[in-house]
Amino acid sequence: MSPQKCDLIIYGSNILTQDENRSILTDGAIAVTGKIIADVGTKADIDLKWNSSKTLDVGNSIIMPGMINSHTHVPMTLMRGVADDLPLLTWLHEYIFPIEAGLNKELVELGALLGCAEMIAGGTTAFLDGYMFEDVVGKAVDESGIKAVLGEGFFEFPSPFFKTAKQAWETIEGLHERFLLHDRITTSITPHAVFTTTPDQLIESMELAEKLDVLWQIHCAESVAETELTSKKFDKRPLEVLCDNGLLTPRTRIHHCVDVTEQEIKQISASGAMISHNPQSNLKLGSGICPLTKLLSSGITVGLGTDGAASNNDLNMFEEMRTASLLQKGILQDPTAIPAQTALDLATVNGAKFLGLTDTGIIKAGMRADIIAIDMDKLHLKPVYNPLSHIVYSAGAQDVNLTICDGKVLYQNGKHFTCDVETISHEAEKAVKWALSRLKKH
Amino acid sequence: MSPQKCDLIIYGSNILTQDENRSILTDGAIAVTGKIIADVGTKADIDLKWNSSKTLDVGNSIIMPGMINSHTHVPMTLMRGVADDLPLLTWLHEYIFPIEAGLNKELVELGALLGCAEMIAGGTTAFLDGYMFEDVVGKAVDESGIKAVLGEGFFEFPSPFFKTAKQAWETIEGLHERFLLHDRITTSITPHAVFTTTPDQLIESMELAEKLDVLWQIHCAESVAETELTSKKFDKRPLEVLCDNGLLTPRTRIHHCVDVTEQEIKQISASGAMISHNPQSNLKLGSGICPLTKLLSSGITVGLGTDGAASNNDLNMFEEMRTASLLQKGILQDPTAIPAQTALDLATVNGAKFLGLTDTGIIKAGMRADIIAIDMDKLHLKPVYNPLSHIVYSAGAQDVNLTICDGKVLYQNGKHFTCDVETISHEAEKAVKWALSRLKKH
Repeated sequence: MSPQKCDLIIYGSNILTQDENRSILTDGAIAVTGKIIADVGTKADIDLKWNSSKTLDVGNSIIMPGMINSHTHVPMTLMRGVADDLPLLTWLHEYIFPIEAGLNKELVELGALLGCAEMIAGGTTAFLDGYMFEDVVGKAVDESGIKAVLGEGFFEFPSPFFKTAKQAWETIEGLHERFLLHDRITTSITPHAVFTTTPDQLIESMELAEKLDVLWQIHCAESVAETELTSKKFDKRPLEVLCDNGLLTPRTRIHHCVDVTEQEIKQISASGAMISHNPQSNLKLGSGICPLTKLLSSGITVGLGTDGAASNNDLNMFEEMRTASLLQKGILQDPTAIPAQTALDLATVNGAKFLGLTDTGIIKAGMRADIIAIDMDKLHLKPVYNPLSHIVYSAGAQDVNLTICDGKVLYQNGKHFTCDVETISHEAEKAVKWALSRLKKH
Repeated sequence: MSPQKCDLIIYGSNILTQDENRSILTDGAIAVTGKIIADVGTKADIDLKWNSSKTLDVGNSIIMPGMINSHTHVPMTLMRGVADDLPLLTWLHEYIFPIEAGLNKELVELGALLGCAEMIAGGTTAFLDGYMFEDVVGKAVDESGIKAVLGEGFFEFPSPFFKTAKQAWETIEGLHERFLLHDRITTSITPHAVFTTTPDQLIESMELAEKLDVLWQIHCAESVAETELTSKKFDKRPLEVLCDNGLLTPRTRIHHCVDVTEQEIKQISASGAMISHNPQSNLKLGSGICPLTKLLSSGITVGLGTDGAASNNDLNMFEEMRTASLLQKGILQDPTAIPAQTALDLATVNGAKFLGLTDTGIIKAGMRADIIAIDMDKLHLKPVYNPLSHIVYSAGAQDVNLTICDGKVLYQNGKHFTCDVETISHEAEKAVKWALSRLKKH
């Protein structure tokens, strides 16, 4: 039998497939045809079965699925480090809101490009976003080659962005239409939070999510402070509002879930809704600590996210994996909590489910070729007893030496192929002056 | 006035001096003469006053003092990732102890070289160590050009390493003698812990510390489990044993202090003893969370450490700074806790005090030239509103592009000048086979 032709064969010393058996292959290879993984196996096996004029040998590197960031506000990358170490309301009202009030489409696109480039370099191949002017976020996603679920956020009407519900729903439907045929972009319905909207709007927006058959995402139960604000307004806890209005559904995606009761965990689990865990942002904003171990043991699918770079201050999924694992071990005084395999699952297979993507997060024939590699020749990764341990407990975003999305090489050995990082960096630095002038005026 | 001659001038876009006023200089320069910082100022100022045939312009980089790792077991770098996610006693008895029982001087030196090379590449210029065969750790420190306080550890006698107290004290005095005239190496007295020694040994070892005029370091109050073991043995809490035996002194260095009472905090503060905080190791081993904010507000000098790479799993001080800050914010639900400046202080000025070094941790005329630079042209550090924020919340060990210790360039732009990292890496990978064979035998 002569070998079949494919478009690309990737070789590496280890492949963490993340398949059903969590197989780890030594001296592995992946055959790619177009956007799809055609085959995965040992080098010897793949060489026998496949033939390609294009090959990529990453040598002593761990190949794994591209990571999936389940919660971010990618344009906020432009506000990385604008202010830290402040009470939440001071941070929001004196820094974030005055800058956001002046944002235009050009600046949102710039922030999105910066964030996409950072994620690509750090081994992230898909993310769930929520912000304003998401059409230009879509433009940045399209150009950079990454995948995204876009979410045009809305607050109680009238807001600075939408005067009426009609205007909001039309904009969201327009966004949905615009990217309907895009192969790497979907959309979602994105109410900001329970305390910044009304139950009627939430219900109406869920109807829209059903009509368009898209995800419905919301910040919920992020902190005790949010619970207090919500209780004051509705005499109910945030998740109670969702539950009582039939808003816990399989298309519901809840960001944070820090201040959550046992009863609420049961309700979320029963509903099929999913949760994104954002440990670094929860810590940095002083929101508290999400009971990740309980959420997982109750059967809830939990994804992993960075939140925006203004409260993180990066889009580094390796750090989120490590923090998710270490934090639970420390809080529970149990070193067996969230083992490395679970942390990696959050960032890959669970992330895919969270984004509603059935064809990524696993390296397996038939899945999209969303693949990254991690250079194991780095000093801080020596020696290697267990590749999985190193990915979660020792490696970092800067160890990524290859990022492929839908079969296309976006980044390799420090070089971006789709993002003009020099121009993006230069423009981002220029935006600092603009942002600071907004703060002075305020 | 014609400019004075010096040996090296370093230029960079920002200098975080860490001086009394925590001055941050823009377009700064540092004049170095031999091992000493001769002058610090703006580029214009230094160029007027100093002249050197050797200059180093790190461009758009933040220059700051080399970081100081206040607690590690550097040879354990050889056991990075050998086992994780296990109950502490399983991890120790089935993995760490069987390997350690077979270690020889060659392997200890190899682990020390690997760890020193990693620390140098990550911007650490000094560390406080505790392990066995510290004479060869000293050899690795000498060769690699980093600074260290060595600590030959001891347990209850007889132990696998010392049959009698006399033998231990002689070895320790020998180590002290050997490095007495070394410019970058000092020693310390290093009982392992209260529950693994006896009060008499602790008292005798403190007398030796006084005689040699060196630091006295001990693991203490690391976890509730340790408190229980100690209470069972002595009917006292670990810090109570130290306090009751006059072992809380200005030369006492306590590692961890996780399970500590308000009363004990007061006693430590009154004594002048210092504490090293090791947040990632405390989390990973499930030890719990050190009340860092309380320790600092009580006036205790707290340093920052990685602990060994077997329980971390790296020697990355940027991660420790970030974790120290984020963890306190999250636990206290207070985003103002441990601001960036405090985190940087732990890793620099406090670290110097912790190691008993009066001439490092600050960039200032008269101090040793222990200097690092961080490349700000990285994508995940764009844009820059505040260099200090980026150092603590966004930068990583791999952003370090220059490490100078005692005026000597040890590392620049990915290249080591004192460590043969290829050979070290190769030998470390070979040691994996040996370590695994020990585990099989066990």
